[in-house]
Amino acid sequence: MTKIYPVIMCGGSGTRLWPRSRKVKPKPFLPLVGDQTLFEETLARCSDAEQFAAPTIVTGTAHLAHVEAQLHGDGARIVVEPEAKNTAAAIALAAALLPEDAVMLVCPSDHHIADVSAFRAAAQAAAALAREDRMVAFGITPTHPETGYGYILRGEELTGGFAVERFVEKPDLERATEFLAHGGYSWNGGIFAFRAGAFMAELERYRPALADAVRRAVAEGSEDGARFHPAPAPFAQIVSESVDYAVMEETGRAAMVPVSMGWSDIGSWQSLRDARPGDEDGNRVRGSAELVDCTRVLVDSDGPRVSVIGLEDVAVVVDGDEVLVTTMAGGQKVGTLDGAKNQ
Amino acid sequence: MTKIYPVIMCGGSGTRLWPRSRKVKPKPFLPLVGDQTLFEETLARCSDAEQFAAPTIVTGTAHLAHVEAQLHGDGARIVVEPEAKNTAAAIALAAALLPEDAVMLVCPSDHHIADVSAFRAAAQAAAALAREDRMVAFGITPTHPETGYGYILRGEELTGGFAVERFVEKPDLERATEFLAHGGYSWNGGIFAFRAGAFMAELERYRPALADAVRRAVAEGSEDGARFHPAPAPFAQIVSESVDYAVMEETGRAAMVPVSMGWSDIGSWQSLRDARPGDEDGNRVRGSAELVDCTRVLVDSDGPRVSVIGLEDVAVVVDGDEVLVTTMAGGQKVGTLDGAKNQ
Repeated sequence: MTKIYPVIMCGGSGTRLWPRSRKVKPKPFLPLVGDQTLFEETLARCSDAEQFAAPTIVTGTAHLAHVEAQLHGDGARIVVEPEAKNTAAAIALAAALLPEDAVMLVCPSDHHIADVSAFRAAAQAAAALAREDRMVAFGITPTHPETGYGYILRGEELTGGFAVERFVEKPDLERATEFLAHGGYSWNGGIFAFRAGAFMAELERYRPALADAVRRAVAEGSEDGARFHPAPAPFAQIVSESVDYAVMEETGRAAMVPVSMGWSDIGSWQSLRDARPGDEDGNRVRGSAELVDCTRVLVDSDGPRVSVIGLEDVAVVVDGDEVLVTTMAGGQKVGTLDGAKNQ
Repeated sequence: MTKIYPVIMCGGSGTRLWPRSRKVKPKPFLPLVGDQTLFEETLARCSDAEQFAAPTIVTGTAHLAHVEAQLHGDGARIVVEPEAKNTAAAIALAAALLPEDAVMLVCPSDHHIADVSAFRAAAQAAAALAREDRMVAFGITPTHPETGYGYILRGEELTGGFAVERFVEKPDLERATEFLAHGGYSWNGGIFAFRAGAFMAELERYRPALADAVRRAVAEGSEDGARFHPAPAPFAQIVSESVDYAVMEETGRAAMVPVSMGWSDIGSWQSLRDARPGDEDGNRVRGSAELVDCTRVLVDSDGPRVSVIGLEDVAVVVDGDEVLVTTMAGGQKVGTLDGAKNQ
């Protein structure tokens, strides 16, 4: 079996899990669901030596210490971006460094996937399509009319997947509900498979300047042990763009592999709550707490005891000098709080 | 004008304002409404030298240090009970120590009264009735159908007040609503006026053993500066009973003075919230906080910043190693929390 090359993206930090996730200890590097951090979970999912080669990590200087502290295995390469340039550049840097025929599996480092077997089966199906030079997205079977994700409409059936009929931007609730009823729409979870050479060919076709800058940043870059530093001058010329815009929505070769794997982007306190196992009242507690007359309450305390009476669908988070109390719906506004903005 | 002798009761601590109020820093000695503590407010209400003699404080060894630290004036006497024996004994100790013709005004130390002028006017009216050997209760004009207080039904009109027709135990909501509609019922706020000798005479009539034990505890007691220590052996024989049962519900001389004075016993997080001035959304904040989409939320933090999104009628209290989040209705259960019970 040809091995799959994991490419793990450790980019921005986000603010929606503030105050637990902060600039100095961002989301991927926190043990948010189980005992492992999300980054460690991501590495573990792609660590079966039968199926996977050693990973390529794409990260920035801000996260480098966290990456190196949590990267327990051998053989990984760490691409250190001088600044964040969005996903098209990050994937292209890895693609330009890897052998042309390597099949890359691009994985965000801050997602939780409950069913690792389903993930690996989908990875094999996606890799098979990628070997035919398809640009392959994981299409996650939706479980509710989520308005926070982009959607993928499937087209004609291919071996192990489907062509992509259309990528759809984040919908409003009405459209999301229609998508769910339609059955042909999947969530775009930001997980992709590409043959490295094929990805670079498509990028050269649709974003030639971006591809050229990446090629030069790699050609003139420098190794330092496991670290690879792209050359700063060409890197600075890279335009920030998502892989969705730069490649997936441009290419005629887009494909998708449908998968149901207990996926969550842990993008809010509500989705973190839902990713953790609850007690019989749906409450989730980490740290010292007592809950009375509570339903579906999340408590997450790094020290103080938290006593909660009479609430439902509320998160209470204690992190050092910050206490957050929010309804699950209100969790969308966490990023607008003074504490989250002025870190 | 004959002066009124304030008798200020600094008894039990209660658990309903946990974790701010704790055994080691009980409710009367905390600045819960304004800048002064409730005990300091109580002293200040009774500190006008034209109207009031120096106060008698009745307290226990556990609270003595707090009393002495916050007792800024001169001339006060502090009766130090070896153990708490409920209000009949506390009032009787003060009555037995004071001149027979002293008119006592018995005040709990942990209430808030917004309108001090109304309080003082009612005190004068109550004192006038007490000089005629009436056993006088303040009857607080109810503002809502509260189920947490006892009620007083007024009878025939007297000069400056009314005879008491009946004392009524805490009612259920239906009865409390009837009482409010009826108009003749007042809350029993635990504020009383008695001529000292008349109180002892009624106590001797209805609870002779209690009166005798108090007389001996005073006669054999010892002075230590401002402190008066009742003699331990007779004190130990005192039966714990409330003044309501021991005297007010027994005597044929009960009277009441109706008063509307912005009174609150600050008996729950809800009543503390309501005693503090709110912003335009009805929120009350002490300490560092940011509230988004909140209505009638109380935040009280001794340090950490508290960020709240999307809640109404909720209290968030941070006190050292304890965080409490409760609905206002749920506040009745605060005393049942592990943290409140195991102090």
